[in-house]
Amino acid sequence: MTRYDTLRPVQWREGRLRLLDQRRLPHAEQWLILDAVDAVRDAIFTMVVRGAPAIGCTAAYGMAIAAHQASDDPAVFADQVAADAAILKSARPTAVNLAWAVDRVAGVIAARLGDGVAAAREAALAEAHAITAEDVRFCKDMGAHGLPYVPDGARLLTHCNAGALATGGYGTALGVARAAAEAGKLKMVYADETRPRQQGARLTAWELHHDGVPVTLISDTVAGSLMAQGEIDLVVVGSDRIAANGDVANKIGTYQVAILAAYHEIPFYVAAPLSTVDFDTPTGAGIPIEERDGDEVAIIDGTRIAPQGVPCRNPAFDVTPAKLVKAIFTDKGVAEAPYAESLARLRDS
Amino acid sequence: MTRYDTLRPVQWREGRLRLLDQRRLPHAEQWLILDAVDAVRDAIFTMVVRGAPAIGCTAAYGMAIAAHQASDDPAVFADQVAADAAILKSARPTAVNLAWAVDRVAGVIAARLGDGVAAAREAALAEAHAITAEDVRFCKDMGAHGLPYVPDGARLLTHCNAGALATGGYGTALGVARAAAEAGKLKMVYADETRPRQQGARLTAWELHHDGVPVTLISDTVAGSLMAQGEIDLVVVGSDRIAANGDVANKIGTYQVAILAAYHEIPFYVAAPLSTVDFDTPTGAGIPIEERDGDEVAIIDGTRIAPQGVPCRNPAFDVTPAKLVKAIFTDKGVAEAPYAESLARLRDS
Repeated sequence: MTRYDTLRPVQWREGRLRLLDQRRLPHAEQWLILDAVDAVRDAIFTMVVRGAPAIGCTAAYGMAIAAHQASDDPAVFADQVAADAAILKSARPTAVNLAWAVDRVAGVIAARLGDGVAAAREAALAEAHAITAEDVRFCKDMGAHGLPYVPDGARLLTHCNAGALATGGYGTALGVARAAAEAGKLKMVYADETRPRQQGARLTAWELHHDGVPVTLISDTVAGSLMAQGEIDLVVVGSDRIAANGDVANKIGTYQVAILAAYHEIPFYVAAPLSTVDFDTPTGAGIPIEERDGDEVAIIDGTRIAPQGVPCRNPAFDVTPAKLVKAIFTDKGVAEAPYAESLARLRDS
Repeated sequence: MTRYDTLRPVQWREGRLRLLDQRRLPHAEQWLILDAVDAVRDAIFTMVVRGAPAIGCTAAYGMAIAAHQASDDPAVFADQVAADAAILKSARPTAVNLAWAVDRVAGVIAARLGDGVAAAREAALAEAHAITAEDVRFCKDMGAHGLPYVPDGARLLTHCNAGALATGGYGTALGVARAAAEAGKLKMVYADETRPRQQGARLTAWELHHDGVPVTLISDTVAGSLMAQGEIDLVVVGSDRIAANGDVANKIGTYQVAILAAYHEIPFYVAAPLSTVDFDTPTGAGIPIEERDGDEVAIIDGTRIAPQGVPCRNPAFDVTPAKLVKAIFTDKGVAEAPYAESLARLRDS
C-alpha cells in the first residue's frame, strides 16, 4: 500500500462493519459502526455508501452479519439468512452488484452449511473479505492497464466520482490516477464539480486530497477553457454501463467532456471492470436514461438557487458514443475500437 | 410594451432612483430607493446592479441626483457635481460604461450650466432618461435583427445572464428571446445554470419567469445531452468584449457551449451592442481573462461544497473563436464572417 492508496470506505473491524458516511463528505469524516442487517440495509438505502462495487462489498458484509446472528439450529439458520438476504436486496433493487454479492455469499453459506453453522459463518465472512479484496484488485489491474496511456507529468481531467469511495478501494478512473501518482507520472487531477449532485467536489476532491494525490476542483464550465490552454493531457472517467459496441453510459456531463476532448485532440479514456459491459445491449440507444427530480438542480444543501415555479430538466446520465472513446481500461486488459470485437475478445479470454 | 417586456431594473420615480436589488434574486424582489450619490455609488460597488449597460444607466441617474443636490450657486454647483462624478466613477473603476455615462451627463450639465443651475439640473435628468431609453432601444434593435435567425417553435439555449437585468431593459441575448416570444416563434429558453456564480439560475430563470417567457433551468452538464437529442435549435449568448476579428469574450463556459453547438451543427449566435466591439484588440488572444477567488467555486450561499485545502481554478471568462460564431446581432445590424470586415462596416455605416 502506498501513500496514494489509503482509503477503504467499507471495512470490517472487530466483528463489525465500518462504513464511511459519504453523505457527510466533504464536511466530516464520520464512520458508522454496524452490527445488524437492518442497519446495513438502511445504510445502502440512504446512500451512506454509493457506487455499485462499494454497495456490493457492503451487502456481502451484511450477509456475514446475517450468518453470525442467525440461529445455531441449521434449519432455522438457513431460513433466517434467506430472509436477511431479501432484506438486503430490497435496499436498492436496481443495483446489479448488490444482488450479485448477496447471492454469492448466500451460495457459499449454502455450500458450507453441511459442515455446520460455524463453518457457514466463517465462510460467509471469508467470502465478503474475498469480494472486497477482489474488487480492489480489479481496480488495481485497471490502473496498471491504463498506466501506459498516461504521459509523464500528466494533467488528468475526470468527471463525477469513479474512485475508492465508489469501490472496495483504489477506484476505477481514479485507480488510473492513483497508479499514475505511484509511478511518478501524475502532475494534477482536475475534478469537474459534476452538477447537479457535485460528486466531483464532494467526493473526488475529498478522496484524492485524503490520499495525497494532487487535485484541483473546477466548475463544469471550465474544462473546455483549460483544454484550449493546453492544460489537460488526458481525460479518464468511469462508467455505469457500456453497450456491446463501446457506447458508454456515465454521469450526466460525461458526453460533453468527450466532445470537448475530441475538439482539442485530447484522448478520452474509460476505466471500468469488464462486468460493466452489457453484451445484451447492442448500442447506447438501448440504455435508458433516468430523469431525476428537478429539485436536485434548483436546491443545493437546502438552499434554493432558482426561482420557485421554474421547471428543471435533470437527466442523471448520458451516453458517450464509442467513436469519442480512445480506449477502455478493464480489469482484463485494454479495449480499443472496434469495441464490439475487442470487448468480446476480453470477455472470452 | 408587451407581456414579455415588463422588467426595468433601473427606474426613476418621484424624484428618486429605484434599483432592483439583484443580490437578493431569485429569493426576493426587493427594490432600493436611493436619493444620495454615496448610496448610488455603494449600490454599484456592492453589485445591487450589475451588467455594464445597467451600471451605466444607474450612474447616469446618480449624476442627476448629484445635480439636484448641489448648491444653487453655479460655481459651487460645478465643483460639487465634479466631486460626485469622481465618487460615482470610483464604484467600479474598470467598467467602461460607468465612466462613459457619468461623462456624458457631466458634459450636458456643463453645456447647460450657462443657462443656470435649474436648466443644468433638468438637462442632467433628461440625459439619464435618454441614456436608459437608448439602451432599451438598442436591445430591441438587436432583438429585431436577430429575429429572422430564430426558427418557428424555437428552443433557444443561453448561458449566463445577458438580459433585462444587465441592461436598461429587454436584454441583449434575452432581447432576442423576447423578440421571438413576441413574434410567437419561441417554444422554450433553456438557461444554463452558469457555475460558479449561477447567473443563469439566479437571474436569467428569474427574469424570464417574471416576464412570462417560457424557461427551463439546466445544470451546465446537460446542454450537450439536450443537443444530442435534438432539443436545442439555436444558442444565443451575450458578450463582455468582442475583438476586431470576431473572437468573443464572455462568461466562463460560453466557449464550451459553442463547441457543443458546432459538434451538433446548431447555430451559435452572439447578441451585443456594437460598442462591445473593441476594434483596438485584433484577436481574442489580446483579451485578458480575470481569474477570481476559488471560494466562488468551493462555497455556495455560505455552504462549503468542497473540502478545505483543495485548490480551485476559477477563470471568470473565456474566449470563443470567431469561427464558432455563426453571426453577431448588433444594434446596427448583423455581422457574419469574415468579422474583421463586417464589424468594421457596421461601425462605419
